[in-house]
Amino acid sequence: MVAILIVPVRLALAQINPTVGDVDGNTAKIAEWIERAREQGAELVIFPELCIPGYPAEDLYLKRHFLAANVAAVERLAAGLAPGITAMVGFAEPVEAGGDYRHAYNSLAVFADGAVQRVYRKNRLPNYSVFDEQRYFVPGSGDEVIEIAGTGVGLTICEDAWAPGPPGQAEADAGATIVANPSGSPYHRGKGREREEMFGERAREYGAYFAFVNLVGGQDELVFDGQSLLFAPDGTVIARAAQFEEELLVTEVPPGPDGAPLADPLPDLDEVYGALELGLRDYVQKNGFKHVGLGISGGIDSALVAMLAVDALGPERVTLVVMPSPNSSEETQADARQIAHNLGTGLIDIPIGPMMEGYREALQAHLRPAAEDADASPDPAKPSAPDLAAENIQARIRGNLMMALSNRHGWLVLTTGNKSEMSVGYATLYGDMAGGFAVIKDVPKTLVYELVERRNERAGRHLVPVAVIERPPSAELRPDQLDSDSLPDYDLLDRILEAYVEGDKGREEMVAAGLPGDVVDEVIRLVDRSEYKRRQAAPGIRITPKAFGRDRRLPITNRFGG
Amino acid sequence: MVAILIVPVRLALAQINPTVGDVDGNTAKIAEWIERAREQGAELVIFPELCIPGYPAEDLYLKRHFLAANVAAVERLAAGLAPGITAMVGFAEPVEAGGDYRHAYNSLAVFADGAVQRVYRKNRLPNYSVFDEQRYFVPGSGDEVIEIAGTGVGLTICEDAWAPGPPGQAEADAGATIVANPSGSPYHRGKGREREEMFGERAREYGAYFAFVNLVGGQDELVFDGQSLLFAPDGTVIARAAQFEEELLVTEVPPGPDGAPLADPLPDLDEVYGALELGLRDYVQKNGFKHVGLGISGGIDSALVAMLAVDALGPERVTLVVMPSPNSSEETQADARQIAHNLGTGLIDIPIGPMMEGYREALQAHLRPAAEDADASPDPAKPSAPDLAAENIQARIRGNLMMALSNRHGWLVLTTGNKSEMSVGYATLYGDMAGGFAVIKDVPKTLVYELVERRNERAGRHLVPVAVIERPPSAELRPDQLDSDSLPDYDLLDRILEAYVEGDKGREEMVAAGLPGDVVDEVIRLVDRSEYKRRQAAPGIRITPKAFGRDRRLPITNRFGG
Repeated sequence: MVAILIVPVRLALAQINPTVGDVDGNTAKIAEWIERAREQGAELVIFPELCIPGYPAEDLYLKRHFLAANVAAVERLAAGLAPGITAMVGFAEPVEAGGDYRHAYNSLAVFADGAVQRVYRKNRLPNYSVFDEQRYFVPGSGDEVIEIAGTGVGLTICEDAWAPGPPGQAEADAGATIVANPSGSPYHRGKGREREEMFGERAREYGAYFAFVNLVGGQDELVFDGQSLLFAPDGTVIARAAQFEEELLVTEVPPGPDGAPLADPLPDLDEVYGALELGLRDYVQKNGFKHVGLGISGGIDSALVAMLAVDALGPERVTLVVMPSPNSSEETQADARQIAHNLGTGLIDIPIGPMMEGYREALQAHLRPAAEDADASPDPAKPSAPDLAAENIQARIRGNLMMALSNRHGWLVLTTGNKSEMSVGYATLYGDMAGGFAVIKDVPKTLVYELVERRNERAGRHLVPVAVIERPPSAELRPDQLDSDSLPDYDLLDRILEAYVEGDKGREEMVAAGLPGDVVDEVIRLVDRSEYKRRQAAPGIRITPKAFGRDRRLPITNRFGG
Repeated sequence: MVAILIVPVRLALAQINPTVGDVDGNTAKIAEWIERAREQGAELVIFPELCIPGYPAEDLYLKRHFLAANVAAVERLAAGLAPGITAMVGFAEPVEAGGDYRHAYNSLAVFADGAVQRVYRKNRLPNYSVFDEQRYFVPGSGDEVIEIAGTGVGLTICEDAWAPGPPGQAEADAGATIVANPSGSPYHRGKGREREEMFGERAREYGAYFAFVNLVGGQDELVFDGQSLLFAPDGTVIARAAQFEEELLVTEVPPGPDGAPLADPLPDLDEVYGALELGLRDYVQKNGFKHVGLGISGGIDSALVAMLAVDALGPERVTLVVMPSPNSSEETQADARQIAHNLGTGLIDIPIGPMMEGYREALQAHLRPAAEDADASPDPAKPSAPDLAAENIQARIRGNLMMALSNRHGWLVLTTGNKSEMSVGYATLYGDMAGGFAVIKDVPKTLVYELVERRNERAGRHLVPVAVIERPPSAELRPDQLDSDSLPDYDLLDRILEAYVEGDKGREEMVAAGLPGDVVDEVIRLVDRSEYKRRQAAPGIRITPKAFGRDRRLPITNRFGG
């Protein structure tokens, strides 16, 4: 059955960027956007999932006084609604009875004529990947169809429509010609294409128009990319909102002769870059920081983070700090300063040689080989590589300096480690890992290069000098050090990491897929034993289907090995 | 109905300490303990929940090759079983069909006569507090009764018996006179008493003997306390295994004239101390460390951690490091050295004054007031307190020194912050928070004092000098500094924290309960804004019903405020 709409409905998809926990601020924004939609003649305006409390608000959903604030907000919105428009708004609804540890539904309130007309409760609660909804919510049951100007509109929330069947199918069968799907669907690379295929199927199965209205904005490790969509009953996309921006998309359903707004999807690399830029900007803004600082080495990683910070915040809100040691080459230092110049940021220069000397003197008696050092009861079974302690001291002096500047000036310090390094633990805890936000922690090294080259290309000039891109990667913690002394080639490393970390593949599967067994074994070992470091890492932006965050929960104490 | 056992059954409760992921090692231990139980005449031996994979193994349960290793282990155990005994062993069982994201059941295998006779699958999967079982497991359904020497034994797993009704009730109704409850029930203060009350009710409802067999051991932030229990059908405890130790408890059911082994519960403070000691020992041992180090200040917190480390590992595996600054008093330094002497540990002394001077020189141009420092584009809206940056530099120099010693000698560095400090952020990231394990992070400051005094009392002498207990707490980061300059009195602070952090109470509830509104407001503000610090803290041992770990999941970006 394909539903036919005789009288068009004027529909608004309100793709907003709420802030978690800011019930009053979010509610004020929703009221303002309802009014904007009404002014543009919309008969129905649909907001994203849980836009009153923000999403995911995690254990806030367990607090009864937080739920009470949600109810008060819904009542305020309903009472303030002007005539002529119906609004569909997500909120966390308290469960009246029941001694369960959970006290809430993930709900949609439908307001019209100054009152709440209907409440729909999410049926399917995802509890995998980054989602913990069965921790917070009691599932609803059943379907709900409302009538807008004679047209049946079915209600679903996000996951409800990620598989065939009810509630969406039941609503379509009961006469809904539009199925609404307010969502909080986080970004990963290529997710937009997955959604278009999957929701296109749903529209065809339902034989109905399908309206996906997504959140936009960054929330800690997640980025919601917006890109709200309207599908025709044949599964084609007839309207698409922008990615990474707020948008009020208003259209008739079915669209008139001029069609509906249809934003082009971004090219792959620009999409990833856009996600990082939004995730960074929102972390800074929503946490009230005015300025960020980062250490810049002349390497590719800090160059990318500097570019992103400038694009997200403007150069006047970014300070780069060069902290050369005797192991830093003249070339890399010059490149670091050139990047600051090209981007127009502030620049601070603090040589760390004198401080390295201070530590060397303080520690020389205590870093001697084990046998000479009886007081320290050292463990002769686990001596470190000769210079590892000294190498890490350099990184930690830099961390200490960055944090002193942060303390003094109220900066957020950005860390610059990429996903390949975070995977194998090629980073110093409290050193280069010191900072509040790890912008590219989910970006594999090979993708770091692509993003920098693409950004240079868009600029039409070398914002990041060619030498930074072409020089073999080095942590510069000892003379002539190269990453390739300690790690496999990044092309190979990133292929193994994709299989092991994102794919949860075992050793045998990886070898059967053509990856070299000895390197696979070494990478597994490095990834497993670095879990303790990742547990103390700053949060960062998820851009892959599995980041080192809430979507990969492994014990530190773990003897499995693979 | 109360079941009557005509012929006694000889039952063994195998309270073992497995290691997460160590399928081969755990399986070997289980085989050895089955044999020990058989030698003692047991007809049935019951092992804890998920003792083959270890618990909680978190996302390891999502790996298909991990599940395959579980199956192979079960087959090996069954094939190797000697005649005359039945064994009940927990494992992660792959789901044969189904495209769900979950691939496992939380199962019990029952072996006898060289083969797996029956598999029971956990019905009720907890998904609250520290538990994420609905992320990993498909629920089983139905009940299962096996026969041991003519006696019906019903099977349940942990949560299955935490509420009345099936499956335990159905099994009792079907004739089971013993209900087995293999569990992985983590410790918090007073949990043993809660279990005895609750399971006593269950035994009465079922009208059956009830055998709770718990894991023992530390796993990252959790401690499993053992204390396995056997209840008579009237709800009385007739056997109790030790807390915090492995034990093979063998008894007849019903017990003969001599009764069954009945360990006394530990006094409250000794129980908390025991949990901390076991949690620390297992983190060290299971992660392969031979030695630990910690900075000792002469304050009460590091004194407690030093005591715990010595009790857990022996003094020869502990090094204390004194790192005085010009702000450290002679008295506290002397007390620190006295503690090392009393405990018999190694002692290293590294004054940090010269390094402080190095940072002061390097940073003096950059820590000036904002207006004079145009290059740094600082944020004049958020200047730090005059000396905060300098105070934190001291703490971070110490962190850097501890990590250098750790790198060189393979130590695990222990941090010494308590729960009160971690709550309000009274700690320096990468400074005193630098280290691999935060032993007392869930111990409120008031309880720190009680634990030290009780340990002194048990020793019959002042292992920790009286002055350490009586001196007003100070971080000693500037002259004459006291904690009470920045924080409410710890008695009041800990009462507010218990209500806010553990009780999820809102401001109004706390004020209604008699807590002062202005202090409540300030504490809420401090707790909320310190979430980012806690996210980068080392893991530590949970001893309360709600620790800062997987049982309290709050966003960093969060404008709720309460």
